[in-house]
Amino acid sequence: MKKFLVLIFLASAISFAQSNDEKQLKKVYSTSLLNGQSYAWLDHLSNEIGGRLSGSTNAAKAVQYTKAELEKLGLDKVWLQEVMVPHWERGQAEEAYIMNGSERIKVPICALGGSVATRFGGEEAEIIEVQGLEDLAALGEEKIKGKIVFYNRPMQADVISTFQAYGGCVDQRYGGAKEALKYGAVGVVVRSMSLRLDDYPHTGSMSYGDVAVEDRIPAAAISTNGAELLSAKLKKNPKLTFSFTMHCKQFNDAVSHNVIGEITGSEFPNEIIIVGGHLDSWDLGDGSHDDGAGVVQSMEVLRLMKETGYKPKRTIRVVLFMNEENGLRGGRKYAEVAKEKGEKHIFALESDAGGFTPRGFSFDCSDGNFAQVESWRKLFKPYLIHYFEKGGSGADIGPLKDNQIVLAGLRPDSQRYFDHHHAANDTFDAVNKRELELGAATMTSLVYLFDKYGTVKEKKIKG
Amino acid sequence: MKKFLVLIFLASAISFAQSNDEKQLKKVYSTSLLNGQSYAWLDHLSNEIGGRLSGSTNAAKAVQYTKAELEKLGLDKVWLQEVMVPHWERGQAEEAYIMNGSERIKVPICALGGSVATRFGGEEAEIIEVQGLEDLAALGEEKIKGKIVFYNRPMQADVISTFQAYGGCVDQRYGGAKEALKYGAVGVVVRSMSLRLDDYPHTGSMSYGDVAVEDRIPAAAISTNGAELLSAKLKKNPKLTFSFTMHCKQFNDAVSHNVIGEITGSEFPNEIIIVGGHLDSWDLGDGSHDDGAGVVQSMEVLRLMKETGYKPKRTIRVVLFMNEENGLRGGRKYAEVAKEKGEKHIFALESDAGGFTPRGFSFDCSDGNFAQVESWRKLFKPYLIHYFEKGGSGADIGPLKDNQIVLAGLRPDSQRYFDHHHAANDTFDAVNKRELELGAATMTSLVYLFDKYGTVKEKKIKG
Repeated sequence: MKKFLVLIFLASAISFAQSNDEKQLKKVYSTSLLNGQSYAWLDHLSNEIGGRLSGSTNAAKAVQYTKAELEKLGLDKVWLQEVMVPHWERGQAEEAYIMNGSERIKVPICALGGSVATRFGGEEAEIIEVQGLEDLAALGEEKIKGKIVFYNRPMQADVISTFQAYGGCVDQRYGGAKEALKYGAVGVVVRSMSLRLDDYPHTGSMSYGDVAVEDRIPAAAISTNGAELLSAKLKKNPKLTFSFTMHCKQFNDAVSHNVIGEITGSEFPNEIIIVGGHLDSWDLGDGSHDDGAGVVQSMEVLRLMKETGYKPKRTIRVVLFMNEENGLRGGRKYAEVAKEKGEKHIFALESDAGGFTPRGFSFDCSDGNFAQVESWRKLFKPYLIHYFEKGGSGADIGPLKDNQIVLAGLRPDSQRYFDHHHAANDTFDAVNKRELELGAATMTSLVYLFDKYGTVKEKKIKG
Repeated sequence: MKKFLVLIFLASAISFAQSNDEKQLKKVYSTSLLNGQSYAWLDHLSNEIGGRLSGSTNAAKAVQYTKAELEKLGLDKVWLQEVMVPHWERGQAEEAYIMNGSERIKVPICALGGSVATRFGGEEAEIIEVQGLEDLAALGEEKIKGKIVFYNRPMQADVISTFQAYGGCVDQRYGGAKEALKYGAVGVVVRSMSLRLDDYPHTGSMSYGDVAVEDRIPAAAISTNGAELLSAKLKKNPKLTFSFTMHCKQFNDAVSHNVIGEITGSEFPNEIIIVGGHLDSWDLGDGSHDDGAGVVQSMEVLRLMKETGYKPKRTIRVVLFMNEENGLRGGRKYAEVAKEKGEKHIFALESDAGGFTPRGFSFDCSDGNFAQVESWRKLFKPYLIHYFEKGGSGADIGPLKDNQIVLAGLRPDSQRYFDHHHAANDTFDAVNKRELELGAATMTSLVYLFDKYGTVKEKKIKG
């Protein structure tokens, strides 16, 4: 009988808790949609500041702007964390032509981030199309030497997650130059990582590994329409040449900053939860989806907590990471300092997949913690948040990984992300206000639940 | 023991069926994404034909075009079903001004569909803001007579489903004029049904009920920015006047058509499944989301069945309904003819909520049929289709409702729908190819399952 009564008590306690959680989530979503700040912040970041490549003046402006905005929120602390970042500049706009007998067809290209410039006067050579890194060995130096290698394997359209499709061909962009120069190539041109056929070239990071500077070859992305055209022309005339000019340059590393703000926990101040996105972006657009959206959503998480009158038990930090795109220096620095200080991070959430309608989260955590997350699933149903899966989280929070922390990434609808990713059309007008706000509310809700219930390991110790 | 063996047999039969279903869905999605036709059809419908208001030349062109395209698919039958439709024309572009002392501010308006024109020279009068139909009685004739009524209740932004938010204020548009004229109003202006603040007025149907033609008053929609401005100006000067001119006109009903194509069922040809959208659209944009998307997705369902080599057991029909927007004559006619012929429809699916990323379906059906649908849920998980709820279906298929048929509506992500709905920016560029194709594949998958397994009642009869 006593046991029975205990059960009844537990059941009603659970139902009471449940109802409080429902109320808090409702308040969070309503506040975000009726009285959100994320869209106005993004407007400033995108339209007043613009593209924020690491080491640039704009990146420094974004640091100052977001710090000032966080200070207005009445957080317990706001500070900058210094970090040295790579400093690469595109310089004058790139130009490229397909030289096909008497035809000279201009095609849209852009330098990949980190590429060397073409030599003085530009590069012109025959161009050989391949479907991936693995094709090079078969062709060998005989067929590649002195030529430009054209990587043209497209993203696979029948993969539902566009991130997975991206993962299936980004090796061409990241490692294409390094691989091609082994066979004597004089340059590489990579099909843009996009599922759309259009005229925007998409930049992104690439690496020469430890190849000496003087041996490096220039690497460009070509728009998908340009790639289709080039491929068609090559089929008719394999001897045509490709001519391109790029003026990009690597400078010395520059001083920059992560921007951090926190609400100190009322009960467990030493247990830290972080939510973040990355403040740097590529330079072609204004970085609205990648990752202006994640930045303003993360700031909004703390603002929504204050606005709804929620006082977290644990310390909630927003971290705006510098240099995700071409170095990950901010993410590494944050984890390094956390380790030095012996800080205990229990949960980290990143938003770096665009400001589209949120669908859920991907989790990198123990089974026990994942089971707890699944028990919260029904709370999210009214908001059409349904995706709770194990998987990756976010690049910037990755360095915090240990065997206790729960890492998570927001997972918005991915269908349009690579239409804009790293290209000149990653701009403010491509972000929908409601979709952005729904993402911020969804993140806030998850952070609230982790703050309230902690992670599973901790519960066992305490319980 | 025998029972046990039967169970094993059943379990393996189920698992075999499951695996075939998985394969068929995979094939459907891949074909739609790699080799789809829906986007090219929509391109033609939107960019070569354009807005397709009932009774217009464009609507007639759309009938001929879609019929011709269906004929190319090698269906068993393609035909037109005649239906008389209302014929209303907007005429010369509308104009409106806020007349505030010496200020004369132009604001974007459009006539609501079915409205009478303003009298010769336009209408100018004082304007009184209300938050809904229910405000009028309290104000009474004294405060309304001789004035224009300005309905300004916005869509509620903290409602997650934008369709629900729309439902919460569309009564102002549909019944606003009829209600206002009871109190002697000389015109009505309605805030556009959109959650965005912008300069597009959104049209849509309205009704005077049985009010005599000579007693009708003109009804316009004003853009959301225009509504905000008008409201702000009215707060400072309640005596300002509003001036507007509209040239719209109702003509005699016109001959038009539903377009129908079918694959005749191989086993149960008399059991009919239909999939459809509406071919007519409003006239301001090109009707890409509303409902060009539903039209081409529905055509694609039959094409994908043929393309994947699936031969349906039941008869699968695509029905492109005419006149959903301002009369529903096509939907009514189709149901009427079906009844006359004693046709047995077991399942009807409509896509009329935009060409955005599909999230699932809403079902109007018995509990038994809904349970069957829920048993298919896991088949859709790889495609991130998660929304299976009881609720409405689609306006055009509504007239088919009886106590046996299963009615369903595709439910795409709704966040951006009312940014475009019935406005000049409902255009082809606002539709994403992949999102459209995913919708077509999702519809095809559900139709396939209903074709293969039938509806629940029928199974019991046969079993």
